[in-house]
Amino acid sequence: MINKLIHKIEENKAPIVVGLDPMLGYIPEHIKEKAYKEHGETLEGAAEAVWQYNKGLIDATYDLIPAVKPQIAMYEQFGIPGLVAFKKTIDYCKEKDLVVIGDVKRGDIGSTSAAYATAHIGKVQVGENTYRGFDEDFMTVNPYFGIDGIKPFVDVCKEEKKGIFVLVKTSNPSSGEFQDRLIDGKPLYEHVAEKVAQWGSECMGDSYSYVGCVIGATYPQMGEVLRKIMPKQYILVPGYGAQGGKAKDLAPYFNKDGLGAIVNSSRGIIAAYKQPAYEKFGAECYADASRQAVIDMREDINSAILG
Amino acid sequence: MINKLIHKIEENKAPIVVGLDPMLGYIPEHIKEKAYKEHGETLEGAAEAVWQYNKGLIDATYDLIPAVKPQIAMYEQFGIPGLVAFKKTIDYCKEKDLVVIGDVKRGDIGSTSAAYATAHIGKVQVGENTYRGFDEDFMTVNPYFGIDGIKPFVDVCKEEKKGIFVLVKTSNPSSGEFQDRLIDGKPLYEHVAEKVAQWGSECMGDSYSYVGCVIGATYPQMGEVLRKIMPKQYILVPGYGAQGGKAKDLAPYFNKDGLGAIVNSSRGIIAAYKQPAYEKFGAECYADASRQAVIDMREDINSAILG
Repeated sequence: MINKLIHKIEENKAPIVVGLDPMLGYIPEHIKEKAYKEHGETLEGAAEAVWQYNKGLIDATYDLIPAVKPQIAMYEQFGIPGLVAFKKTIDYCKEKDLVVIGDVKRGDIGSTSAAYATAHIGKVQVGENTYRGFDEDFMTVNPYFGIDGIKPFVDVCKEEKKGIFVLVKTSNPSSGEFQDRLIDGKPLYEHVAEKVAQWGSECMGDSYSYVGCVIGATYPQMGEVLRKIMPKQYILVPGYGAQGGKAKDLAPYFNKDGLGAIVNSSRGIIAAYKQPAYEKFGAECYADASRQAVIDMREDINSAILG
Repeated sequence: MINKLIHKIEENKAPIVVGLDPMLGYIPEHIKEKAYKEHGETLEGAAEAVWQYNKGLIDATYDLIPAVKPQIAMYEQFGIPGLVAFKKTIDYCKEKDLVVIGDVKRGDIGSTSAAYATAHIGKVQVGENTYRGFDEDFMTVNPYFGIDGIKPFVDVCKEEKKGIFVLVKTSNPSSGEFQDRLIDGKPLYEHVAEKVAQWGSECMGDSYSYVGCVIGATYPQMGEVLRKIMPKQYILVPGYGAQGGKAKDLAPYFNKDGLGAIVNSSRGIIAAYKQPAYEKFGAECYADASRQAVIDMREDINSAILG
């Protein structure tokens, strides 16, 4: 799947991923009204609004982008109906041949991580049949448990040719509270990065590992150091745009082959119509605003990579 | 909710929690056969088997225990039907007046942690109505993001009088890979513990904080040190029994008031009928085997606390 991701990035000339993180506040009123009319102001109504909103966004952008990254928390908050919308979104994106990165940040002791890996990138046996619970192509993973919390994910990656992105340095303001603390003269995130490089070396695609990492766009100097520690890891980069990360700072996240990183934008794309630059589209044409925001982001990132 | 948890621990003389972590391999054949007959060998069939198995366990033990801890990964692996069984399990446990600890180990940047907090211990607004997605009483949380990944959970705890258990030192063999690394002469888990004590001080019940922590039974010496750093935190202790933790080692996890910790057992209770000590019950009477295992565990833990 890392090979497919890279192929699609090259094909679209777009090392970008659209974060499908739908908050009700982002969804245009006409979509919510229709959904509430059919289902009432219920969890089912909210989930229908989320799904219709996503469908519009996907239809308007799928031919420009390699991948999407739905953040499961935004669906989980609407309980079971929300998770049904999450699954519908995954299935629809895969119909459109998009690579789906489940932003689920799971991680636990070995047997539990194995169940999470099964849920999101693997398959489960029921009697004589096998099923796939959510069936993303990649998922994000938390490293706090060390190797035996990670190995079950790596095992499933090998079996399924799917991938994970392990949190190394996160984009939020307080990420340094633990991640930046020095251990033997090096910050914790570098120790995690060294382990990620090691874990990933057992699980290689054609040119990059199935085991990637997450490094926030908001910490470019750290990105530069981490790029060198993990030359074979694809870096999933959150924090561009709304969180403050700038394209010009992202060049060091990429390797000399122009590959090695994929930059996420969520709010900046999916709620583009609410920004001054795109408000002319209006709420009715929110998806066209998002399409234009994707085109602009692609140019912004590419100009930064090309120097 | 921490007050209720303590009240129920005292009432039942049982500082224990039953981990409802159903693997298909634990579920007696007669339950699976019935479920598959109704729903086929499908995700729905598996979820029905899980739910019927849980219901039997809850009916046989609810009058002896203060709390249950369903591990969401074991449900998530069966996709949407699995999560429906998770929700049914939560609701049924609450009907039986059990305290429900959602073992979900969520954690992310601020806005995403807020959505997870909403999903599991909070409520979401849809138009003029409010709903609760999963509605546990407590949830487990991962600290890797630092304070701004934790604060949204603490805020919801304050509002809802519910609680969280933050991972400090996990029970798995490789937990030391990052958690034990020395920072300014102290292991990372002690730094996390100091922060947990600080975060929790803003959010106190009558005698303990709404913000508790997780410390594995498998690391008793660390438990002793951590108890002193976090005197007001309730400690959720996984790793007793099947993972190797022994009751005699757990005395230091408790305060002098006999409170301050709650010990989890999953496999040891829910799959008791598969162990030599309880195999006389047989698969048909698996729930009676679990009831006896709860009684024995309670005695084992109490004898350790009382010295």
